[in-house]
Amino acid sequence: MTYCLGIALKEGLVIAADSRTNAGVDYISIYQKLFDFSITGAKAIFLCVSGNLSITQQVLDEINGDLKTDAATNIHSLPAMHQIAQYIGEKVRSAQACHRPALEKDGIDYNCNFLLGGQLYGEDIKLYLIYSQGNFIRATPETPFLQIGETKYGKPILDRTLTYETSPPDAAKCALLSIDSTMRSNISVGPPVNLIMYFADSFEVQHRIRLENRDPYLIEFRKKWEVMLREAFITMPDIPWSELAKPEIESTSDDS
Amino acid sequence: MTYCLGIALKEGLVIAADSRTNAGVDYISIYQKLFDFSITGAKAIFLCVSGNLSITQQVLDEINGDLKTDAATNIHSLPAMHQIAQYIGEKVRSAQACHRPALEKDGIDYNCNFLLGGQLYGEDIKLYLIYSQGNFIRATPETPFLQIGETKYGKPILDRTLTYETSPPDAAKCALLSIDSTMRSNISVGPPVNLIMYFADSFEVQHRIRLENRDPYLIEFRKKWEVMLREAFITMPDIPWSELAKPEIESTSDDS
Repeated sequence: MTYCLGIALKEGLVIAADSRTNAGVDYISIYQKLFDFSITGAKAIFLCVSGNLSITQQVLDEINGDLKTDAATNIHSLPAMHQIAQYIGEKVRSAQACHRPALEKDGIDYNCNFLLGGQLYGEDIKLYLIYSQGNFIRATPETPFLQIGETKYGKPILDRTLTYETSPPDAAKCALLSIDSTMRSNISVGPPVNLIMYFADSFEVQHRIRLENRDPYLIEFRKKWEVMLREAFITMPDIPWSELAKPEIESTSDDS
Repeated sequence: MTYCLGIALKEGLVIAADSRTNAGVDYISIYQKLFDFSITGAKAIFLCVSGNLSITQQVLDEINGDLKTDAATNIHSLPAMHQIAQYIGEKVRSAQACHRPALEKDGIDYNCNFLLGGQLYGEDIKLYLIYSQGNFIRATPETPFLQIGETKYGKPILDRTLTYETSPPDAAKCALLSIDSTMRSNISVGPPVNLIMYFADSFEVQHRIRLENRDPYLIEFRKKWEVMLREAFITMPDIPWSELAKPEIESTSDDS
């Protein structure tokens, strides 16, 4: 599995990914899931991938192939982010058309998802989730984050704390926490964590980091978070246990 | 969906459940998922259910039927908790044998899970997860909690804070937080929340509560938690962004 998330904020974009790929529990490897196609001064383009590795790698190879051969349509020639999403969606459709019948026949998961985030000159920050079917949705101020892969473990912290107005540095900590919680609770998501923070209209990636599992910062971050959570229970108001509630959860033996 | 969890601690047991059942998104209803079969002074027995409602209700009806007819084997006659787990497992197998073929034929999920927790006189506290197949596992000091239903959203908070030594009141707050986070992030889990805290060797349930969504305590609890999380980001150490990491997440266009 994998876990990647993107957060499109008023002042910037945060995008993050783990690096674990597994085919069952006995074949676990490290693959980069976050790719940077930015051109400093002109465009910021980030791509995260999840799902069937053979399909996501084929899509990436084709994107890179179009760049290398200077194809008329490539990830750098398109003038709008939604056109890039459309372009990637078409690559996804063609990779699915090529491999899905054989995979489906043998019961192998052929699904793949992409997060595309960034900013082109003349546009606002954009963040898209591209599905296995090649269609895509866009993050909005009401729903500023999008996730792919093993998304459930890391969602509550995002739901509880993120808004469109959250500052990029706070959102980056939130993203790291969301990924770290997922790594802690699910063995199919694992380090290193790649994280990028991009400020709107900068057209330059000045903040990026790759954190290994034993990175001193990550260790300190985890420890501090866990201490804080435990302290929080103590300060949370005591549960007002009530005898009144008793009949409501009584044995059903009286009702049957 | 549903979310229930049990926590078997050194000093007690916490067991909690939401109350939402849904058949698709357009048929959502409230059903109690936590049942108390305790006999004050003699035995504490709690049961939580998740999965196919027709099957879990049939199992509950049969458990209650055996009690009502004073059958030789019933949930109160068995002298050990693992025998009660075995007894419920057999009810599950028989309900599955009855309904699974018809459900499976129409692609309807026939799975069901049960959490069985409590203490019989002469035994320690026990907590079991009984599967659709009727087999079961037991919580241990290394893994003190068990979950059924929509388990992923609420797992990180448990993984990060719970141990066998956690006090029952802290574990109860943790359980409430785990359920509340799940309700917040997934519409298929919903209030009221039923929660029981049992102290070892008391053989009496003195702490139980049923919290509706707009319960003033739950509102205060959520607000306080969200404020605390946001404050936590500010106090968490700043990410040591590093230019050194740059080549690691560079575009793959150079590699292809």
